[in-house]
Amino acid sequence: MPALLLSRRDLDFLLHEWLDVTRLTARERFAEHSRETFDAVLELGERIAADHFAPHNKANDANEPRLGPDGRVVMIPEVGKAVRTFAEAGLIAGEFDEELGGMQLPNVVSKAVLSFFHAANVGTAAYPFLTIANANLLVAHGSPEQVDTWVRPMMEGRFLGTMCLSEPQVGSSLADIATRAEPQPDGTYRLTGTKMWISAGEHDLSDNIVHLVLAKIPGGPPGVKGISLFIVPKVLLNEDGSLGERNDIALVGLNHKMGYRGTVNTVLNFGEGAHTPGGRAGAVGYLVGEPHKGLAYMFSMMNEARVGVGLGATALGYTGYLHALEYAKVRLQGRPVGAKDPATPPVPLIEHADVRRMLLAQKSYVEGGLALGLYCSLLVDEERTAESEAERERAATLLDVLTPIAKSWPSQWCLEANSLAIQVHGGYGYTREYNVEQFYRDNRLNPIHEGTHGIQGLDLLGRKVVLNDGAGLRVLGESIAATVRRAREAGGEPADMAEGLQAAFDRLAEVTVRLWSAGDVEVTLANSSVYLEAAGHIVVAWMWLEQVLAAHGKDGDFYTGKRQAARYFFRYELPRTGPQLDLLASLDRTTLDMDPAWF
Amino acid sequence: MPALLLSRRDLDFLLHEWLDVTRLTARERFAEHSRETFDAVLELGERIAADHFAPHNKANDANEPRLGPDGRVVMIPEVGKAVRTFAEAGLIAGEFDEELGGMQLPNVVSKAVLSFFHAANVGTAAYPFLTIANANLLVAHGSPEQVDTWVRPMMEGRFLGTMCLSEPQVGSSLADIATRAEPQPDGTYRLTGTKMWISAGEHDLSDNIVHLVLAKIPGGPPGVKGISLFIVPKVLLNEDGSLGERNDIALVGLNHKMGYRGTVNTVLNFGEGAHTPGGRAGAVGYLVGEPHKGLAYMFSMMNEARVGVGLGATALGYTGYLHALEYAKVRLQGRPVGAKDPATPPVPLIEHADVRRMLLAQKSYVEGGLALGLYCSLLVDEERTAESEAERERAATLLDVLTPIAKSWPSQWCLEANSLAIQVHGGYGYTREYNVEQFYRDNRLNPIHEGTHGIQGLDLLGRKVVLNDGAGLRVLGESIAATVRRAREAGGEPADMAEGLQAAFDRLAEVTVRLWSAGDVEVTLANSSVYLEAAGHIVVAWMWLEQVLAAHGKDGDFYTGKRQAARYFFRYELPRTGPQLDLLASLDRTTLDMDPAWF
Repeated sequence: MPALLLSRRDLDFLLHEWLDVTRLTARERFAEHSRETFDAVLELGERIAADHFAPHNKANDANEPRLGPDGRVVMIPEVGKAVRTFAEAGLIAGEFDEELGGMQLPNVVSKAVLSFFHAANVGTAAYPFLTIANANLLVAHGSPEQVDTWVRPMMEGRFLGTMCLSEPQVGSSLADIATRAEPQPDGTYRLTGTKMWISAGEHDLSDNIVHLVLAKIPGGPPGVKGISLFIVPKVLLNEDGSLGERNDIALVGLNHKMGYRGTVNTVLNFGEGAHTPGGRAGAVGYLVGEPHKGLAYMFSMMNEARVGVGLGATALGYTGYLHALEYAKVRLQGRPVGAKDPATPPVPLIEHADVRRMLLAQKSYVEGGLALGLYCSLLVDEERTAESEAERERAATLLDVLTPIAKSWPSQWCLEANSLAIQVHGGYGYTREYNVEQFYRDNRLNPIHEGTHGIQGLDLLGRKVVLNDGAGLRVLGESIAATVRRAREAGGEPADMAEGLQAAFDRLAEVTVRLWSAGDVEVTLANSSVYLEAAGHIVVAWMWLEQVLAAHGKDGDFYTGKRQAARYFFRYELPRTGPQLDLLASLDRTTLDMDPAWF
Repeated sequence: MPALLLSRRDLDFLLHEWLDVTRLTARERFAEHSRETFDAVLELGERIAADHFAPHNKANDANEPRLGPDGRVVMIPEVGKAVRTFAEAGLIAGEFDEELGGMQLPNVVSKAVLSFFHAANVGTAAYPFLTIANANLLVAHGSPEQVDTWVRPMMEGRFLGTMCLSEPQVGSSLADIATRAEPQPDGTYRLTGTKMWISAGEHDLSDNIVHLVLAKIPGGPPGVKGISLFIVPKVLLNEDGSLGERNDIALVGLNHKMGYRGTVNTVLNFGEGAHTPGGRAGAVGYLVGEPHKGLAYMFSMMNEARVGVGLGATALGYTGYLHALEYAKVRLQGRPVGAKDPATPPVPLIEHADVRRMLLAQKSYVEGGLALGLYCSLLVDEERTAESEAERERAATLLDVLTPIAKSWPSQWCLEANSLAIQVHGGYGYTREYNVEQFYRDNRLNPIHEGTHGIQGLDLLGRKVVLNDGAGLRVLGESIAATVRRAREAGGEPADMAEGLQAAFDRLAEVTVRLWSAGDVEVTLANSSVYLEAAGHIVVAWMWLEQVLAAHGKDGDFYTGKRQAARYFFRYELPRTGPQLDLLASLDRTTLDMDPAWF
């Protein structure tokens, strides 16, 4: 039985027939690459994901990391083997500079490769993925010495990384973090405070753990402008780079999640001083970049991180879809509508229109989500390597406005795909003897972390569509209009779809203006989550029209399936936005006016 | 901290201010009852649910029943204590005749009481609930001797009951069951076959387990018309009624679910003959009623069972909502929109409009679902005890058409409420350290069991709205029209809502005619799940208008909250039906035409 992670056929269609990523090899950074090297790394990724990650996905869920009697984190041995295999294959370093031992892969190819691991085993994949995110931040903002010291061992998987942002009292509102960093005469800092939700915060998978920690330097400005970023290693290094003494970081507890159980999730205390005022003066930390710019550095990577969450949600939806499809083809149940003779033999589930509806919905969500995630990943490449400054700026602007959607839309709809995958399986799908219930539990994290759904809505309507005189929405509109033009030229069904898309986008733009003319920012933003959802469906309809154009004039089941899924999306999904936009246009105050006492 | 199960204030509003259930005491069956006895049993139920069920809900989930080394089912001791307390309080017998030791409660009051247990601990509540369902079936269709032998001990909790319908190869399509029942010269039967998904199928909570088993008597008609119903006890009884030898029923495995973990779910083999052809000739069973009528008997209780699933889904949504509301009031996070000064102190979550939106959505789903469930439960009473034959028939018809909605709508939207409750909690909500993630896992079963969402859609569009020349839809339309008339008389906002409701229902009726004029039953039924969802939202809008009328002219936060939740439902929810009805009216063939090869 194949691992049923993602469809390689679909990936090839999106990467080559649609996005034509091989054209990136004309750019200096990717000059060593070719279609062949891209194919090779995709194959490598798929194979390692299928052979080393997927097989222990259930075991990692059923035997989540726990605190051993000696205070160490105990986990099943397959996790360490998988992480080592991943690192040894060079996949942590995939996107990084050759000089650091990397492959200098385009972001879009790298993210496609990593999606196999999200589909195979999010619990185990989180260890290398957090390390990649951490290393990305240090390469961008750390000193050359910091890169040498911390990033190089991460590339090899000898060190693994974390991100330490939240605190027990602070999730979405990072302005309120309480962790302090006291400057020392030697230029280092001593950190004290408690960090919450730290994935991969403690384990024995690597020689060291490189924590990237947000903290406040006393005397800095209040709020988000007074936050700095620090490297705080689990083990301090000696002068020669060898491992020295343990830093002052204590594991004070594990969080136990509904899903994502395979990733140890910790509460960490930095500086025992937090507990014993007379104790040591904190954990040793090294400032990254300049003081008070920590949040800005973090946000410089935010687009990529959030698109990554969306791709992760998509991958979980995708593998669930493939599992449901396989099950629907082999499971016999019931008879065709109208078959009166009880002796008629049962038919495969897929023969029932309602089952095909559920499969088609899943297909439209997961292939739409994958298209959006890869499109945004390509924008990261364009933002960095497009030839002209204008193209780079345009890519950056479009990526900015798409990011909250690329994060939240798959988190909502590919979770719904997982629910439909359970439904196709019936009672079996609800059991842990099958795979799909775990995908559903795992995926439920994605609307929460890296900025909740509500935060994404505020980001989109409150910032992204209005910044720079509405440049974000304008660039999005131009991009959609370009697709619409090509679809009109193609004629026929693509042209019909184009009319629907253009009308929906025009309405969105009109509603945006109306919302911002309300004269009361509370009213404008009251239903920003609804705005986010409407914009999301419109953007994904655009992604489907793009796919229809890439498949245009091509014969065969694969292309016919793409067209049918697009039809589904335009007929069953895009119309959902009508009532949402009507509501927004009415400047409704129902939620705003709801007095807490009335609940 | 209160148990946060259901709002007693809301229950009192629905039962008394709206449904006026005390008027039932004018009927002979309920003549011994009064508002005081209803209140007393609600209080009793709430207290036992809070004190004996809720406290071990998490423990029962974390320590699910398992197979002990001796092949017995091991579970935490709190389960047995809770079930005994429930039985000793007379709650199993609540609805049953006084002659059987019951309280002769109206169904609507009994179901309200039981909802506290669904909210508190579905895993443990399933044991007495299945027993009630089993006993109901035997009282309706068993012989007086069978009632004496099996129902009386169930009333006291000495015996517990199960329902054995599904088989490993058969879920939704019961026509295909393979379990056989061979008649014996002494009038008993010997059953051989394997039953799947048997909740409470094996345990030591009671002296005996009364399995109600669907099986085929050889030589009977094929399909659903050849299915008979049998009592198959775990332990055979001696002539004097004392416990005798074990019947030939083997526990062959446990299923491990995503939620509902506290209820042991089993695979049972009836008759070792299934394994060893030379062995014994099957498990001893006693035919209930006449041969080949088993499915009809089962379906005679189906409305009640399905409304019960909907109420269970509602109760889980309701407790999740109350947990989220409590959390949103105390958790400080973020600042009001527009607060620029970072020194502004954080505010409770409930101060954010988007959080109030999520709470209002939950309120509209769970209070709407509860209204629908209680309304249908009252129809069960009307069907049985209304004064005139015409009233009883009308109630039966309305209950028939509402049942698929009362089952599926809360299973979908109160599950969504659970998802929103997680979202309000942020990262904490995703952890097992908090309560809401379990509600979400538990509730995900409800769209599957007792007929999937897809089955309910076929039942509604394929049967219920067309039977008897469309009597179901006609009676529903008359009932809605009566509410609309009262709302118009009330004027103002209720009258506005009435216009929206009437227009939506008219459209539904029109679309129903159009679907049935298609001339191709495959096209008619292709999107019956979409029809089910649209009809559901319209019916719940009706329930909200009914609540608005019951609250009309009344002051105070409670009534104001009802009005605001109704506004939310009419503005944010009811409009969802527009695109659904448009799609249905277009006789769309997208899902029908999707060729399996195109996936």
